[in-house]
Amino acid sequence: MSDVNKILLEENEIPTQWYNILADLPAAMPPPLHPGTHEPATAEDFGPLFPKALIEQEMTAERYVDIPEEVLDVYKLWRPTPLFRAHRLEKELDTPAKIYYKYEGVSPAGSHKPNTAVPQVFYNAKEGIAKLTTETGAGQWGSSLAFACAQFGLECEIWQVAASYRSKPYRRTMMEIWGGKVHPSPSTVTEYGRSLLEKDADHPGSLGIAISEAVSEAVADEDTRYALGSVLNHVLMHQTVIGEEALLQMNKVGAVPDVLVGCTGGGSNFGGLAFPFMREKLSGNINPVIRCVEPKACPTLTKGEYRYDFGDTAGLTPLMKMHTLGHDFVPEPIHAGGLRYHGMAPLVSHVYELGLVEAISISQKECFEAGVLFAKTEGIVPAPEPTHAIAAAIRVALECKESGEEKTILTALCGHGHLDLASYEKYLKGDMVDIDLDQSVIDEALSTVPDIQG
Amino acid sequence: MSDVNKILLEENEIPTQWYNILADLPAAMPPPLHPGTHEPATAEDFGPLFPKALIEQEMTAERYVDIPEEVLDVYKLWRPTPLFRAHRLEKELDTPAKIYYKYEGVSPAGSHKPNTAVPQVFYNAKEGIAKLTTETGAGQWGSSLAFACAQFGLECEIWQVAASYRSKPYRRTMMEIWGGKVHPSPSTVTEYGRSLLEKDADHPGSLGIAISEAVSEAVADEDTRYALGSVLNHVLMHQTVIGEEALLQMNKVGAVPDVLVGCTGGGSNFGGLAFPFMREKLSGNINPVIRCVEPKACPTLTKGEYRYDFGDTAGLTPLMKMHTLGHDFVPEPIHAGGLRYHGMAPLVSHVYELGLVEAISISQKECFEAGVLFAKTEGIVPAPEPTHAIAAAIRVALECKESGEEKTILTALCGHGHLDLASYEKYLKGDMVDIDLDQSVIDEALSTVPDIQG
Repeated sequence: MSDVNKILLEENEIPTQWYNILADLPAAMPPPLHPGTHEPATAEDFGPLFPKALIEQEMTAERYVDIPEEVLDVYKLWRPTPLFRAHRLEKELDTPAKIYYKYEGVSPAGSHKPNTAVPQVFYNAKEGIAKLTTETGAGQWGSSLAFACAQFGLECEIWQVAASYRSKPYRRTMMEIWGGKVHPSPSTVTEYGRSLLEKDADHPGSLGIAISEAVSEAVADEDTRYALGSVLNHVLMHQTVIGEEALLQMNKVGAVPDVLVGCTGGGSNFGGLAFPFMREKLSGNINPVIRCVEPKACPTLTKGEYRYDFGDTAGLTPLMKMHTLGHDFVPEPIHAGGLRYHGMAPLVSHVYELGLVEAISISQKECFEAGVLFAKTEGIVPAPEPTHAIAAAIRVALECKESGEEKTILTALCGHGHLDLASYEKYLKGDMVDIDLDQSVIDEALSTVPDIQG
Repeated sequence: MSDVNKILLEENEIPTQWYNILADLPAAMPPPLHPGTHEPATAEDFGPLFPKALIEQEMTAERYVDIPEEVLDVYKLWRPTPLFRAHRLEKELDTPAKIYYKYEGVSPAGSHKPNTAVPQVFYNAKEGIAKLTTETGAGQWGSSLAFACAQFGLECEIWQVAASYRSKPYRRTMMEIWGGKVHPSPSTVTEYGRSLLEKDADHPGSLGIAISEAVSEAVADEDTRYALGSVLNHVLMHQTVIGEEALLQMNKVGAVPDVLVGCTGGGSNFGGLAFPFMREKLSGNINPVIRCVEPKACPTLTKGEYRYDFGDTAGLTPLMKMHTLGHDFVPEPIHAGGLRYHGMAPLVSHVYELGLVEAISISQKECFEAGVLFAKTEGIVPAPEPTHAIAAAIRVALECKESGEEKTILTALCGHGHLDLASYEKYLKGDMVDIDLDQSVIDEALSTVPDIQG
């Protein structure tokens, strides 16, 4: 068994509960604040945005939340996902380290995002909501939500950052295949969008603007809600199916991780893999180093400040205490689209502050180099986001080669790169440059963040 | 177990032998002929093109051929592939039929093609060959061969039909990630290519021309051989891992196919799924209807003639007795790129002549409609090629709805459509047209085929 490439689980081994790490942390997390009053946000404040069940999950102190049968039924289209032992990569690196990766690219949308899209749509459907709105950048989240809406018969309206809408039509087509309606953002649909287009008809858009458009459409209609693909507690909790399965799979082959690395954008892929292992670490069963990996071009944990900030550019969302580069921060157009968020999930920021995780940042050329080496040895072409995790895993494996240590490394390959080949083309042509982010850029963006003590 | 979505196998359940259906057929197959002498081609005739081991496999009468350990090691990166029960599609169709599909899109290249690319490269490597050449259209085969070459350290040079090279850069990038060198065909590399470019600098190319370029480069160099992704006996034999696994998986849940449908281009995906079931049918264990599905725009089995023809346009390959539309036949640019070959594998043609399989043709709009319905219910966006098989499976399922029969349908989903989204976009926009192929077009192409009795 130890020699296999894939450690598989049966469908009846899909976790039946999500894990809420808040129940096990040594300190409470600072609450979100109402954007107007700066008082702790209440369930009512979230009412126009999310269904009751998700607001409850966002605030719950329960350690475990049951996964509904209807959600498990959809999960079964692709879950459990395989855990791979990277034999061929290890051999190429000539390392005594053992590298395992949990592969989420087998989902219909090709990433971990459907793990939360499906329950989010389910709870909205159950409460009679007819339509969901959301934003998307490169399209991973938008396509996942469109897929999930198709499963429960909801309409899905997506605001896609205009620059991506124009340059990457294929993700849009994927959303449309699943019945999603896609607007370039800024759009003529919302007042905010129109105001921006009046000033600049070719406005490239941004995630922050797209969020504002999607949110404003959701609050304006009683039967419409909004869905977010990362950052929030309930989103990270839904993603813990990744880590729970990985834990079971590692146990099956008697493997215990010495180092766990995950890429962090909003934080949902990282939290999904890491939190179940953190639970075991907190209870003294295992003792892995747990490491976040972020792009040098958007280093929220390693260079951002831990303070209250908005989730969007326009300041419509509640204030959240998180590592942030400032909600006005616009990352350079690096290709790891999913890692370009100005903030980090409050929950990931919190465990970082508690010293439960480390963080490093890596430049994109090292990441793509790792991605190409991974594709040549393991076959799968990774999405640009998880190449950060792969690069970090390779660093550890090469250290082991030096030291002779036989460390066990675990990481998450959160998606394939079939719709990101243009960025690989750029890398292979030698047209890719590393971003050397100046501290003054961060300082300037942070200067517009309201000064709130929490 | 009967309610699961995915029937999985362990790695040690990957077949250890390929199945050669020639050993079990009631009549021998007409031999390939030398293109010059029209005498049966000898092993020596194939020498400049293929390594000895593959020529032996092409001509063997043995029922089973052992799969080398080194090939199994690479297969384990993605094999065994899952067999799915399409619960959600069945429900949407409101049919009493049970639909199973064997999914080959989990391979690194995203289709069944690596099943033969890997052993082909292995045998070449073993005989000291340093480089392989091949042709590719949309790029499925080229990317599979590039992936396989990366596993055994061979160079890979690919001639891609120029029209695809220009309009679909992403498959090319995939080939380059795995180290492949890609030329648009016609190219300036070969004499034949240059002669065509002299007449038309913007020549769009064709599969036939690309084959001629790849073949001429292979025969000109002692350390270089050529690889073909379909049509030949050894290619179809390598693909029987699909059917052997599916047979085992069906057995595990006690399912017996009443109808087996597969899409046919060159014939390798169809043969791979069908031949192991045909063995069971020939020995009286089961009695499924076995049905080929081809595009109405390239109906080799349903409208072509069974006669000797060349495998390429320039007439460099041996003559093979097969269903053909004539080697000069250029199919309309329908989007199911892999189904655009003018001929059908001699082996598939032979079993068709023996009455062991049926054949139907389906228009592309019905196929894309089936593809979208499949994506909405089962999640996976299928490649255009297998939408033909899905459309045929849906036809049977809807007949069952009428008749009340609880038939068990088995098909192969031979690849995902992540790199074919442009054709879905065209379909969704309503810009897709069905081709009504005129018999006179076929007659004209057939008029240039040499008249050889065999």
